[in-house]
Amino acid sequence: MATSASSSSLLDHLVIGIDIGGTGTKFGIVDRDGNVLFSSEISTKKHKEVETFIDELYSALGELINKAGGTGRIKGIGLGAPNGNFYTGTIEYAPNLPWKGIIPLAKMIEDKFKLPATLTNDANAAAIGEMMYGAAKGMKDFIMITLGTGVGSGIVANGHLIYGHDGFAGELGHTIIIPDGRMHPGTGKKGSLESYASATGVRYTTIEVLEKSNEKSLLRAIPKDEIDSKKVYEAAVKGDKLAQEVFEYTGKILGIALANAVMFSSPEAIILFGGLTKAGEYILKPTREHMEANLIQVFQNKVKILISHLKESDAAILGASALAWE
Amino acid sequence: MATSASSSSLLDHLVIGIDIGGTGTKFGIVDRDGNVLFSSEISTKKHKEVETFIDELYSALGELINKAGGTGRIKGIGLGAPNGNFYTGTIEYAPNLPWKGIIPLAKMIEDKFKLPATLTNDANAAAIGEMMYGAAKGMKDFIMITLGTGVGSGIVANGHLIYGHDGFAGELGHTIIIPDGRMHPGTGKKGSLESYASATGVRYTTIEVLEKSNEKSLLRAIPKDEIDSKKVYEAAVKGDKLAQEVFEYTGKILGIALANAVMFSSPEAIILFGGLTKAGEYILKPTREHMEANLIQVFQNKVKILISHLKESDAAILGASALAWE
Repeated sequence: MATSASSSSLLDHLVIGIDIGGTGTKFGIVDRDGNVLFSSEISTKKHKEVETFIDELYSALGELINKAGGTGRIKGIGLGAPNGNFYTGTIEYAPNLPWKGIIPLAKMIEDKFKLPATLTNDANAAAIGEMMYGAAKGMKDFIMITLGTGVGSGIVANGHLIYGHDGFAGELGHTIIIPDGRMHPGTGKKGSLESYASATGVRYTTIEVLEKSNEKSLLRAIPKDEIDSKKVYEAAVKGDKLAQEVFEYTGKILGIALANAVMFSSPEAIILFGGLTKAGEYILKPTREHMEANLIQVFQNKVKILISHLKESDAAILGASALAWE
Repeated sequence: MATSASSSSLLDHLVIGIDIGGTGTKFGIVDRDGNVLFSSEISTKKHKEVETFIDELYSALGELINKAGGTGRIKGIGLGAPNGNFYTGTIEYAPNLPWKGIIPLAKMIEDKFKLPATLTNDANAAAIGEMMYGAAKGMKDFIMITLGTGVGSGIVANGHLIYGHDGFAGELGHTIIIPDGRMHPGTGKKGSLESYASATGVRYTTIEVLEKSNEKSLLRAIPKDEIDSKKVYEAAVKGDKLAQEVFEYTGKILGIALANAVMFSSPEAIILFGGLTKAGEYILKPTREHMEANLIQVFQNKVKILISHLKESDAAILGASALAWE
């Protein structure tokens, strides 16, 4: 009987994960356990036309597919991209990508690769990745927040990602935390979470605090243009009070945003991912404190704040790939 | 053949809706089209013990059930109550009810009435009512917000109410809109939506504005204790600038909260219900404007703000009753 052989080859199925960023695009071939078997990267930025981008992707991925045993072993392709719409498979007006307007990316990939392709935005893909392979394994209600250059989020409720009416739900980074607060240069909106609780936000807060206070700080020796969240973290570790205050303030704003998110969808956990989480307790302690302080009683001391334990180099590919299993 | 008779009697099935408020409890018998066939009300407040409350409810509802043709026609009971937990059927630490601690209400009602009973909080019940009988008929993604003495909300995504991990999701009224803002006397938290965009909030804002400004106002003739949102509305209609400013300010805060909610779950519409909506365009115009002004582009000019068209006297009963059909 061939049944057992064919069902074992089904279990062997692999998927492709492609994470499209403004600068580069990472891609890889992933198995059911979340092992990235083969991976590589091409430039996004250099492709003014999406067609040449897809051609290069096809040729680079072709090599990996051959190494993995051919197209027959691939179940499908998952795509994560900024402003990626799950319902339509299109990228719509992504400010950080070189291609303008509405790009029918999932369809173009399907036509080129002759494999089913599913698209969503990068933060939603990350959430599915955490649910499939990471810290949210087995959870039905959680929120994933990526704290990088910007702030992305994916919200899972009742075991399903919330896409919303139009496919664009889960933009916690753009919710307003400080009305009439700091202007976001990309959106023109004032006081959004992303304006504060991102690597860029930490940089701005540091420059503001340095200008407003007279406190001594190791950061005063660094030219303003070179201040970034990593240098602020290094100063904080060395005991620099001003640097620690920057994280305290960032954590306060993140904590309020998390409290609001908890009172919205009451998750079991919030999973944090991305560069800012490297600041560890300098940012997590105030975040936790201000979250709890702003929660009404029924939500207090219930919600775990977890740091993603997926390898940063793999996480984007894993997240996108997880879409292809669904 | 008896099939057609029995299937027509199935279609005839009725449900009971019970809405438990801090002061009174409304209940009624409802058909599939959302007609409240029989209804009545008893006091909640006078019952220090939940047992005597259930006894009185049983006897009062018994009369209505008899009028409707007996228990055999009743499919089940839906219950809406503050802090009602859908998963456990319990009311947990409801500050405005006379019964303290955790009350296993759904079980107690089932035992007494010998009918299946389902409980959720009042705002979630209202959302299901709108989806079943009201402005949200046919929608899969919407948010219901009740603007009364307090602010309640129910969030529907992918066609399902979001209950969250613990059954308490959807507390938009307690999300923080103005960090370190006005203290909420019930929760002790500062700057929540409910502190501003409720009948109570409008009263406080009016008193604050009267104290801070020297502007002439019809409201100055009213003793402070007697100022309420209805009187502010009446003054606004008469052209009172200060009263209009109060609604403008309330709408600004509500608009920010709605923008945040939209960026969270991207609904097709937001349905508003309750006393404050009677202020009509005085509050809706600034709400709409500030919502749009705080939305990032991808969400702009997409989300309808609708006023519930359910009769206020029926809506609470309808909302609770809708649970019993599920």
